[in-house]
Amino acid sequence: MAYTAEIIAVGTEILLGGTVNTDAQDVSRLLSELGIDVYFHTVVGDNPGRIKQAIDIAKGRADIIITTGGLGPTFDDVTKQTLAKAFGKKLVFNEEVAKKIRDYFARRLPGIKMTENNLRQADLPEGCVIFGNGVGTAPGCAFEADGKHILMLPGPPRECRAMLQSCAAPYLRKLSESEIHSHNIHIFGLGESAVEEKLRGLMENLHNPTLAPYAKDGEVMLRLTAKAPSKERAEEMMKPVLEKVRETLGDIIYGVDTGTLENTVIGLLRKNRLTLATAESCTGGLLSKRLTDIPGASEVYCGGVTAYNEAAKSELLGVAQELINEKGAVSGEVALAMAHGVRERLGSDIGIGVTGIAGPGSDNSGLTPGTVYVALCTKDTSICTKPGLFGDRDRIRISAASNALDILRRLLQKSNIPS
Amino acid sequence: MAYTAEIIAVGTEILLGGTVNTDAQDVSRLLSELGIDVYFHTVVGDNPGRIKQAIDIAKGRADIIITTGGLGPTFDDVTKQTLAKAFGKKLVFNEEVAKKIRDYFARRLPGIKMTENNLRQADLPEGCVIFGNGVGTAPGCAFEADGKHILMLPGPPRECRAMLQSCAAPYLRKLSESEIHSHNIHIFGLGESAVEEKLRGLMENLHNPTLAPYAKDGEVMLRLTAKAPSKERAEEMMKPVLEKVRETLGDIIYGVDTGTLENTVIGLLRKNRLTLATAESCTGGLLSKRLTDIPGASEVYCGGVTAYNEAAKSELLGVAQELINEKGAVSGEVALAMAHGVRERLGSDIGIGVTGIAGPGSDNSGLTPGTVYVALCTKDTSICTKPGLFGDRDRIRISAASNALDILRRLLQKSNIPS
Repeated sequence: MAYTAEIIAVGTEILLGGTVNTDAQDVSRLLSELGIDVYFHTVVGDNPGRIKQAIDIAKGRADIIITTGGLGPTFDDVTKQTLAKAFGKKLVFNEEVAKKIRDYFARRLPGIKMTENNLRQADLPEGCVIFGNGVGTAPGCAFEADGKHILMLPGPPRECRAMLQSCAAPYLRKLSESEIHSHNIHIFGLGESAVEEKLRGLMENLHNPTLAPYAKDGEVMLRLTAKAPSKERAEEMMKPVLEKVRETLGDIIYGVDTGTLENTVIGLLRKNRLTLATAESCTGGLLSKRLTDIPGASEVYCGGVTAYNEAAKSELLGVAQELINEKGAVSGEVALAMAHGVRERLGSDIGIGVTGIAGPGSDNSGLTPGTVYVALCTKDTSICTKPGLFGDRDRIRISAASNALDILRRLLQKSNIPS
Repeated sequence: MAYTAEIIAVGTEILLGGTVNTDAQDVSRLLSELGIDVYFHTVVGDNPGRIKQAIDIAKGRADIIITTGGLGPTFDDVTKQTLAKAFGKKLVFNEEVAKKIRDYFARRLPGIKMTENNLRQADLPEGCVIFGNGVGTAPGCAFEADGKHILMLPGPPRECRAMLQSCAAPYLRKLSESEIHSHNIHIFGLGESAVEEKLRGLMENLHNPTLAPYAKDGEVMLRLTAKAPSKERAEEMMKPVLEKVRETLGDIIYGVDTGTLENTVIGLLRKNRLTLATAESCTGGLLSKRLTDIPGASEVYCGGVTAYNEAAKSELLGVAQELINEKGAVSGEVALAMAHGVRERLGSDIGIGVTGIAGPGSDNSGLTPGTVYVALCTKDTSICTKPGLFGDRDRIRISAASNALDILRRLLQKSNIPS
């Protein structure tokens, strides 16, 4: 049987816009991997009447109902009470869970006194499967009633994510039969609708596997997904489509299943045993931050400089003040001097320099926000590019860092370097 | 009349977990400011039947229905068609909108050829108010039917956000009467349930204004909200509650309506006319990135160094190799030497040094992930602290950067510095 699921996030803070519903994303991703279709997400406030209403609607259109949030210790956490009531289950105090909550406070938060309200989290629906919380104190649970499976997960994203993997995934895996496998094709350098236009003919004729584009932060990801009885069969079904996509898009594909640009770049540096150093102006540390987001980056990434004023460019990177005066701090020449400077000082194989105007205003040069130079140098190569960037400050900073990563990726993969 | 609204996000990618529903957050935030209650969010795929079902449910429980997504040029974008049909409206091709789309391509994306499917975006429900898209090509719109107000906004977050402010906000403002005003009280250094426990008595007795806690990235924000006929009256109602909260929580409140820690710190540096430089190891540029997220940071932030290996610490910061050998790269002494080094080299008033183990593994020192030293120095002060951090790599990095920002904030506000 093919199951369908509905995700109900409980939390007034989401409806007020104070927080974004990342839990639904995490749960959806897992369900998608398990081949369980999700047709609706609902968000409802911490209000028993409206939670009940959302549950009633979900009961009418899904086999599995997964709630997130409202399991905490505070008086507005009412998910468990409301779901238990809706499905005619009593709440029972669980001494073992209570002990774990007391232990958690003693061990993880030695400075913080446990307050009595935390023990409300040990009240659980009778006969449920308890989902232990490895990160926080609120346990989750699952039970069957009225032919439906009901799963309750905590709201804080880290807790929800951990419990999904350790408890909900095994519980759900038992229910589903056919498997879903997918490949993520990562693209940089072309917009979503242009990518789709190139692949239109291919995409329209696909049913299983399917190919769908997602745009994010100036990148496009194509997800190729097959539903099949086994991983091997799914791979067989996807192979010719993947080949066709590679043939059509060429080297704007920066990786398949390699995650982000930074992850791809760190992988390529490791593979080629090369080290990197960065010198940033307008990106202000974002490039360095993205590289060091990747665990183990320290093996190939030596470090970097955020040269936010001119003194930093000359003092830390040895960029000549005359060059800055003559060409301007935002110029190809200064980007190159930054790349050379940081490469020499840190003794790395590769140096990157980024300088530009992120906005919202211009600096005293009068250049428009979005004017950005990205330079890259090795022992015997010097490359300088000027990508045309636009958008607000955040977008320009993200694009500038992504362009730097993509140029490095192209160098390491021996692809064309755009000018 | 008090209106209620429901937000329907259309997009299979959200249901598959490929993207998170930030649009609903942005719309919710606006509605909350306008005093329009939101009781439900729904997410539905690019499927006419299920979109219709979601609309029918929303019609039964809300006065205003706001959709996001599905307005784009591709063949799975069906929101407009489905909504028009559900409310008995025809779609009409709008030549003026078509012209704008052609212009957009010619002006903003000179290298990219406009594909014909983009003109589908000029089909709009008869008699609607057109919402121009300042960022992308898909226009939005609003119309009244069956006693309801229907608003359609584009899915890409930047486009949705821009249209919300420029078009949807004025449209909705005309509908609502009473105003909602709020203050955000920002807290660092105590968990959500401990904050709530301290304020329990106060919170339980509040109805208007209300006080609600939100936890995010190791911080807690309290939102104090009043509904009143005027801003002045709302402020009067909030004043005594704000005073009581300040009295109860003391200096763990780092700001009121000051946004993030980094924004607060940049504001304090400006006010005190002081400059800052940073030297980071485990945070890998995150501290620098967060500071430069703030427009105008360049007035007070000179720059920084990501000293990810030992060579970077000695070469760029002048940390003595003997000190690293003797005390270890992760030590209070090295954190202080980093702070002093970067302060001297960049000639700033204040220097910050952060060194630690972010994990997942340890380095060759055998120290546990979460061991982090944060040092801060000025002409005549040297402070070194060792906050106890735990969690995964991301969390440790975020907490380390936040601790550094909070110590600086305390220095600038002349509050106690924890050891």
